[in-house]
Amino acid sequence: MFKYELIKESSECKARLGKITTDHGEIETPIFMPVGTRATVKTMTPEELKDNDVQIILANTYHLFLRPGHDIVEEAGGLHKFMNWDGPILTDSGGFQVFSLGDSRKITEEGVYFKSHIDGSTQFLSPEKSIEVQNALGADIIMSFDECIPYPASHEYAKQSLERTTRWAKRCIEAHKKTDSQALFGIVQGGMYKDLREQSARELMELDFPGYSIGGLSVGEPLEMMNEMLDFTVDLLPKDKPRYNMGVGTPDYLFESVIRGIDMADCVLPTRIARNGTAMTSKGRVVIKNAKYKRDFSPLDDECDCYACKNYSKAYIRHLFNVDEILAYRLVSTHNIRFLIKLMENIRESIKNDNLLEYRDDFYSKYGYNIK
Amino acid sequence: MFKYELIKESSECKARLGKITTDHGEIETPIFMPVGTRATVKTMTPEELKDNDVQIILANTYHLFLRPGHDIVEEAGGLHKFMNWDGPILTDSGGFQVFSLGDSRKITEEGVYFKSHIDGSTQFLSPEKSIEVQNALGADIIMSFDECIPYPASHEYAKQSLERTTRWAKRCIEAHKKTDSQALFGIVQGGMYKDLREQSARELMELDFPGYSIGGLSVGEPLEMMNEMLDFTVDLLPKDKPRYNMGVGTPDYLFESVIRGIDMADCVLPTRIARNGTAMTSKGRVVIKNAKYKRDFSPLDDECDCYACKNYSKAYIRHLFNVDEILAYRLVSTHNIRFLIKLMENIRESIKNDNLLEYRDDFYSKYGYNIK
Repeated sequence: MFKYELIKESSECKARLGKITTDHGEIETPIFMPVGTRATVKTMTPEELKDNDVQIILANTYHLFLRPGHDIVEEAGGLHKFMNWDGPILTDSGGFQVFSLGDSRKITEEGVYFKSHIDGSTQFLSPEKSIEVQNALGADIIMSFDECIPYPASHEYAKQSLERTTRWAKRCIEAHKKTDSQALFGIVQGGMYKDLREQSARELMELDFPGYSIGGLSVGEPLEMMNEMLDFTVDLLPKDKPRYNMGVGTPDYLFESVIRGIDMADCVLPTRIARNGTAMTSKGRVVIKNAKYKRDFSPLDDECDCYACKNYSKAYIRHLFNVDEILAYRLVSTHNIRFLIKLMENIRESIKNDNLLEYRDDFYSKYGYNIK
Repeated sequence: MFKYELIKESSECKARLGKITTDHGEIETPIFMPVGTRATVKTMTPEELKDNDVQIILANTYHLFLRPGHDIVEEAGGLHKFMNWDGPILTDSGGFQVFSLGDSRKITEEGVYFKSHIDGSTQFLSPEKSIEVQNALGADIIMSFDECIPYPASHEYAKQSLERTTRWAKRCIEAHKKTDSQALFGIVQGGMYKDLREQSARELMELDFPGYSIGGLSVGEPLEMMNEMLDFTVDLLPKDKPRYNMGVGTPDYLFESVIRGIDMADCVLPTRIARNGTAMTSKGRVVIKNAKYKRDFSPLDDECDCYACKNYSKAYIRHLFNVDEILAYRLVSTHNIRFLIKLMENIRESIKNDNLLEYRDDFYSKYGYNIK
């Protein structure tokens, strides 16, 4: 079962509080979803995610299709059981990954042929195949197989592409075998063209998906352009369905998305930069390998309540990075995940109190953002 | 404070039960000590070590002297605080590491000059320097700076070396500033020569150390030779002091050491082979990358109570290794540590019940060892 409940709309912007119910638990929105590409959120256990109040995680169809194979995950009893995570999961469609392969893929109306980045073998994903894989994985929320076009793209190409995305969305609905336990979202495309966003939203809403992603954003366009497209596109979508902005994970993109009515976001950023030794903190980014932290016995972020900040100093974490110890990656990953989860908790609280814009401005000035 | 209490001697061999008391807690012996070379037991948190009933860990003076530097660890409040481990710690003297550097070190009566493996800079460790570093680190048990000779070595060289080790042991005692909180162990050398082991033991016992290591074993000699040297050397040592066999971490070496009266052992083996995907189990070693585990949804070891075995399948762990995920290293490391800790628990229990030899034979036959 899948249900979205709109709890409150902000009086000062389009931000809103909501609750999603799935077979694996409830999700308070707006929410940030950590990414567990290959059936693990890098460096972390499911218990650690829960300790950080993570409510839902994302996994990638493309990667799991190739390794270990969705058949093995299905035999294991599905993704939840395979990876020991009993909370809600969302899988993407694999579309974004195969389109990112550039010259190594060929798009046809039937689907996309691509060369595996692992062994060079030719593989095929289509709306039907993507849904078959996602049905086998068994996530609570699954995504339509769409074409995600790069920025910039011509009006003509963006229009052809969104129309194909609509045709593929219909085929996804046809192919979807587990409508009781898995909610299939549609993905609004149309590049940076408002008329095309309108066309895409209209066509997809006729298909009555239980939720909608806004695709093709945060693909290299300036923040202002994302904001403009979000402002425009969100207004086209129904209020009683959740809205998901894919691939967003910096505090500014999260704030600006939520302010424009987005309920869900995901990104590999917090764990990726963690493994390079970069922590997001209430006072901006900390690059832990910096020599100035050699004798800094204070935590990464003195406002943070995560395991790393409660128990370890910058000097220790810097030492671990210098000697390439795995605990280094663990500590900063857990910190960055907690940082974004806590940020979203604060965002939800400030929507409740109708002071989200003030909280944003305050956060930006402490974080060191210079955004108009 | 440091105290060793002999609780029970086996009726069937030299094995014995004991208890060591330190400022950071008690240790039941015989004990296996996981190694946290650079102030972290690779991949694991201190809480995870405790969940696995680890009672004491080891850290390496050589590595911490070079990075981050013992001055930084001391400023942090000592090694316990720096690495967030409040249980007992043992540090080695750095001797074994600098002697392992081969051509990159020069031994004099004063100490050892060596080239850092990190930046090629010339460094110096001596009895006084090693103790200064170990005093700064603040471990509960510290080791004398000795010369660990390779196998094989001539009688002449082994004799010169053990006599230097005795002279250095006296200098270590002189240099030791924290006798109240840190127990300094002596290290019996003498290679594979009984007359020299006897000479070394006699000379060191005159210095009345609170505990004794048997050095220069498990350096490449056959198990039978280690057994013979242990049998002989342990009988030379006082009953009221703990005995430590350094660098021992396979089940057979642990059993055979305990049977010959050893109380303490350490090794990097369980975490090192874990990172290569090898698990020690009640039925022998499991090489998890093996294709036969692709669809094996059973745990690494169905007799194990560790976090990995309670929550994950071989198929999942194999997948994690195939895609090079850090959780892979974590899960097998935690399993292997738990395996050896549990093994030592069982060994202590069987000493209590006077059936250690029967337990050993049973274990060996299940593990696949073929040892007379």
